[in-house]
Amino acid sequence: MKEYSFLDDYSEGAHPDILRKLVDTNLIQQEGYGEDEYSRLAKKLIQKHLKNDAPAIHFVSGGTQANIIVISSLLRPHESVIAARSGHIQVHEAGAIEATGHKINTVLSENGKIYPEDIEAILSAHDDRPHMVKPKMVYISNSTEVGSVYSKNELIALWNYCRTNELILYMDGARLGAALTAPGNDIRLEDIVRYTDVFYIGGTKNGALLGEAIIINKPVLQEDFDFLIKQRGALLSKGRLLGIQFYVLFQEDLFFRLARHANEMAQLLAGNLTQKGIPFLVPPESNQIFPILPNAVISGLKQKFHFHIWRKIDEKYSAIRLVCSWATPEKAVLQLTGFLDMIY
Amino acid sequence: MKEYSFLDDYSEGAHPDILRKLVDTNLIQQEGYGEDEYSRLAKKLIQKHLKNDAPAIHFVSGGTQANIIVISSLLRPHESVIAARSGHIQVHEAGAIEATGHKINTVLSENGKIYPEDIEAILSAHDDRPHMVKPKMVYISNSTEVGSVYSKNELIALWNYCRTNELILYMDGARLGAALTAPGNDIRLEDIVRYTDVFYIGGTKNGALLGEAIIINKPVLQEDFDFLIKQRGALLSKGRLLGIQFYVLFQEDLFFRLARHANEMAQLLAGNLTQKGIPFLVPPESNQIFPILPNAVISGLKQKFHFHIWRKIDEKYSAIRLVCSWATPEKAVLQLTGFLDMIY
Amino acid sequence: MKEYSFLDDYSEGAHPDILRKLVDTNLIQQEGYGEDEYSRLAKKLIQKHLKNDAPAIHFVSGGTQANIIVISSLLRPHESVIAARSGHIQVHEAGAIEATGHKINTVLSENGKIYPEDIEAILSAHDDRPHMVKPKMVYISNSTEVGSVYSKNELIALWNYCRTNELILYMDGARLGAALTAPGNDIRLEDIVRYTDVFYIGGTKNGALLGEAIIINKPVLQEDFDFLIKQRGALLSKGRLLGIQFYVLFQEDLFFRLARHANEMAQLLAGNLTQKGIPFLVPPESNQIFPILPNAVISGLKQKFHFHIWRKIDEKYSAIRLVCSWATPEKAVLQLTGFLDMIY
Amino acid sequence: MKEYSFLDDYSEGAHPDILRKLVDTNLIQQEGYGEDEYSRLAKKLIQKHLKNDAPAIHFVSGGTQANIIVISSLLRPHESVIAARSGHIQVHEAGAIEATGHKINTVLSENGKIYPEDIEAILSAHDDRPHMVKPKMVYISNSTEVGSVYSKNELIALWNYCRTNELILYMDGARLGAALTAPGNDIRLEDIVRYTDVFYIGGTKNGALLGEAIIINKPVLQEDFDFLIKQRGALLSKGRLLGIQFYVLFQEDLFFRLARHANEMAQLLAGNLTQKGIPFLVPPESNQIFPILPNAVISGLKQKFHFHIWRKIDEKYSAIRLVCSWATPEKAVLQLTGFLDMIY
Repeated sequence: MKEYSFLDDYSEGAHPDILRKLVDTNLIQQEGYGEDEYSRLAKKLIQKHLKNDAPAIHFVSGGTQANIIVISSLLRPHESVIAARSGHIQVHEAGAIEATGHKINTVLSENGKIYPEDIEAILSAHDDRPHMVKPKMVYISNSTEVGSVYSKNELIALWNYCRTNELILYMDGARLGAALTAPGNDIRLEDIVRYTDVFYIGGTKNGALLGEAIIINKPVLQEDFDFLIKQRGALLSKGRLLGIQFYVLFQEDLFFRLARHANEMAQLLAGNLTQKGIPFLVPPESNQIFPILPNAVISGLKQKFHFHIWRKIDEKYSAIRLVCSWATPEKAVLQLTGFLDMIY
Repeated sequence: MKEYSFLDDYSEGAHPDILRKLVDTNLIQQEGYGEDEYSRLAKKLIQKHLKNDAPAIHFVSGGTQANIIVISSLLRPHESVIAARSGHIQVHEAGAIEATGHKINTVLSENGKIYPEDIEAILSAHDDRPHMVKPKMVYISNSTEVGSVYSKNELIALWNYCRTNELILYMDGARLGAALTAPGNDIRLEDIVRYTDVFYIGGTKNGALLGEAIIINKPVLQEDFDFLIKQRGALLSKGRLLGIQFYVLFQEDLFFRLARHANEMAQLLAGNLTQKGIPFLVPPESNQIFPILPNAVISGLKQKFHFHIWRKIDEKYSAIRLVCSWATPEKAVLQLTGFLDMIY
Repeated sequence: MKEYSFLDDYSEGAHPDILRKLVDTNLIQQEGYGEDEYSRLAKKLIQKHLKNDAPAIHFVSGGTQANIIVISSLLRPHESVIAARSGHIQVHEAGAIEATGHKINTVLSENGKIYPEDIEAILSAHDDRPHMVKPKMVYISNSTEVGSVYSKNELIALWNYCRTNELILYMDGARLGAALTAPGNDIRLEDIVRYTDVFYIGGTKNGALLGEAIIINKPVLQEDFDFLIKQRGALLSKGRLLGIQFYVLFQEDLFFRLARHANEMAQLLAGNLTQKGIPFLVPPESNQIFPILPNAVISGLKQKFHFHIWRKIDEKYSAIRLVCSWATPEKAVLQLTGFLDMIY
Repeated sequence: MKEYSFLDDYSEGAHPDILRKLVDTNLIQQEGYGEDEYSRLAKKLIQKHLKNDAPAIHFVSGGTQANIIVISSLLRPHESVIAARSGHIQVHEAGAIEATGHKINTVLSENGKIYPEDIEAILSAHDDRPHMVKPKMVYISNSTEVGSVYSKNELIALWNYCRTNELILYMDGARLGAALTAPGNDIRLEDIVRYTDVFYIGGTKNGALLGEAIIINKPVLQEDFDFLIKQRGALLSKGRLLGIQFYVLFQEDLFFRLARHANEMAQLLAGNLTQKGIPFLVPPESNQIFPILPNAVISGLKQKFHFHIWRKIDEKYSAIRLVCSWATPEKAVLQLTGFLDMIY
């Protein structure tokens, strides 16, 4: 690979503390299928961070898997899920949700977020019962696929709208760490318990080898969830692998420290670019930023760094995606801005 | 936990060589989604062991996941899969195969194996087109769920029958290592390439943290398989985790050494029990053995060791399952037989 | 065709009264999708026969369709349905239930009926949560696929068992008319409302061109059922076609008269065969009977009549299926027994 | 109901010739499940109209059912279907296609039609394999949901694009009669055989009680289609009901005569409205027309006639949908325009 990859936040392995714990516990025999003591302890630790021991917690391997299980567990066959047109379930899961039988109703969103009026429009358009699907769940991601972050007021507004309209509110937290530690964020983990029905805390993109923790807040939605995990092929024999990782991430506050670092590196990068007068597709809020650059500059940058070209803006300009992670060294950020100084 | 657990072959973490490699490669940036160099190398190493570079190889996390993806990728909606009534897909996957839309046609099997005449009976019973499903795939496991192992002649007979009848032959190799290194085995890895359409090599139960390598022998069955992996939620962002493990297992012959050890421990155990005149539910062939013991003896044994009670035989006797793994120390085997000497 | 077909009870069109009503109402404009006045009236008439106006009633075209909709509406993805191994959903629906994602747990049954101890055995075998499906519904047919009929005590025993074990009891009534008018029957239509959760009344095999009336007894199970009908492609634009037919069948007691005739013809036939000393595979109770005859006699009979050869008994004998319908003339029955007198 | 309903083209029963044939053949015993002689004859008659006996023909009950079966038969799980955002499968089938596991990729369309550049845009946007679905089928309706009709050149352009890009072209012909007899149409039935892979001829909206004829042009797509019909609950026991109707419709040219009448009535209506200076949402081409009227006029009209309010245009105006059918008498059209003369 080249100087450094800003492609994504999963180019490295795991935080060394996690690997160390895996090594230390390696030969201690444990029950399989998530019944191990590490998984049990990790769930308690997360509940402590949630300041609430009512939610049920389940560990699975990845985000698409979490979305498949949550959505297909909670919807009846004729019920659909509302998502932004840029939502991960709509774009980047190879039809995984439809493969479980459910339609996604999409709303156009510039910044990746959904607002009550978007949901209202979908509900209004689905008034021809029984010829249309019945929208029953709202899927949001925080941070979103374009790095934006919900405010507490926005979340509460969604929650109130969903309650009034008997909709399930589900937050995809593949990058929840980045959201909760973003500079402008005013949501705490315990707020998410209060203002969503289900959410998940992403480990894979925040220092784990793999692993997402699904949190089901309402008891009525918790029933038989374990069957769904097994049925969708997501129940690891060695569930300890997930338990140990979340144990390390939440024993103290490693989860938050890693996310904060990723954000800080991205903000450093965004600051430097802004100083150079470079505009952004979406205001840079968390660990993913989307500067708009001349195509020639992008070509130059490509020779030294890895990143995605996100979207063509016009004939001369494109937006690129730069992602910082728990592992991104400040040096790499400075190399990139230094190199940019030379070519732009 | 108690003195020692013979519950299964996934009570420990991973072989130390695997963990060491994870640590050593941890911060080297890699492409995501299985495009990393370790995954590519691991596939080449496996092809070398297969003595054949035509098969396509894909890594996924677990056995149920592998079964879901293989079966739903290769069957049309009206096609069914034939399995032993004791088959993992029939009993222990929470309806995962049916959840993808496919019926399982079951055959009764004492020893966990399927023979051409079993398939013949299913085909004959499904002659009322289009009112019945169309059996199109045969699912076998090797070693089976009761530890038995196919002979080469048995495999070739199945293969010939399947070819004649346009059936896909799929081998679930969750415990393929145990099969291939069983004392009575006469099948080599390259035979499986020749005499099946698809199979998978199980890592989870043979020294890996998680991971199964799906091998698709026929090019016509390989098409678009990557989409199915993604759609079923099985494409890990950090695919390196799977690649590194299979790299270590197949760089030399660690995979086989670990399996052989598990078998040797089980054979040692079986030999000791046989000497005491203890009968078995199924002749002990690989790393899972099923001795039949008086219920009182089982209760005694339970106080010192973990294991499954497999099946009630009559009012006084039950069969138990004892599983040895790559990690089972000879000392544990001797403790069990020593303790049994005292109480039986 | 030959002299007469005893193949099934759907070889003719519809009872002439039904066709007459279709002609008479043909050009009266009506709302589509079952909102027509005939459908509304027909539902009221059926509720009157049920002596209960709480059940929700929905008309669909066929039995497999009814089974697909009922089962997929009421089960969550991990839940399964228990059925006799001879049950229509298990054998003759081309995997339609599995295609909606649900496993069928089968019980062996000589006479086509299920008893509480059969269900008990299934529940006991499914105690390894969450690795196994969760049996949640019991599917019975009345009359069964081999013409047997449940007694009221048998039905109540099933109902009580299901209530105690939180199972949904669903009766496939493709031939409910034949069951309710069978000589030995002691169940009335209103009993079925009381002792099942859902059932359907078959029109297709009892004088209609097509049409089954699904009856959902419990309000909690009625919710959103209309969506499922639409989603499975079962909502006819011209719902009047179903409404008019059930209107004619239940305006007075045509439904029962037609079923009684079919039974009487079958009993006449069965009586004649019994007099000749011919044994039956299952005691003849309704409009389907299964005499056991020498293969040579069957060959002779085949030259004059249409019927299914049901099952080989031994080298010399087979059971055949003879079905009488609302349209079977006594003359045809006498021709068959007369012909048999000549050759047997 | 009121003076007359222009709600849809399925408010009446069937053309009297169809009912007469049902009555005449009623007691002639026939094989079930579409093996009757009427179905066989009807298929031959349709092939004669297609000027081609290679296509396989299957009869089912309704349009949603046809769409479910065709799409789920021809796509693998990861493959999607492209449709207009106004397409029936996208809007009005309660998620039926997604319920079989497939995503719909939508394109915005003012006139209900799809063009090669729309498909091109979808393909370009789905270049991130294997994270996205693989578009594999194009679904068009002719006439469309807003009454527009494809020209032969438009169809050929789509066909060529689809062939080049290995896409299956499927035409929903719920209102194919209206399309083929529209004043501006230049497509013949035999062209559709040549320039699509699959299509269906709608009977329900063109004089039948129910029934659509699915035509599969390519042999490779025909395989095992009968299983899918059964599995989706669409195989009628009394398949004769469908066979007889298509026999009557295609014995001579009743199908076309009925469609032509519907178009003529709609054109008469459209002409009258145009003379009054009333604009249309979409140019009126077939039996569905969409005039734009002041809301006050619509309210007046509502007191005398049934029709759908299609879409709000602005605060004062809305588009309504007026549908003429094979059964619409000229008198009803004149009543409506006469009444409109009084109030507008």
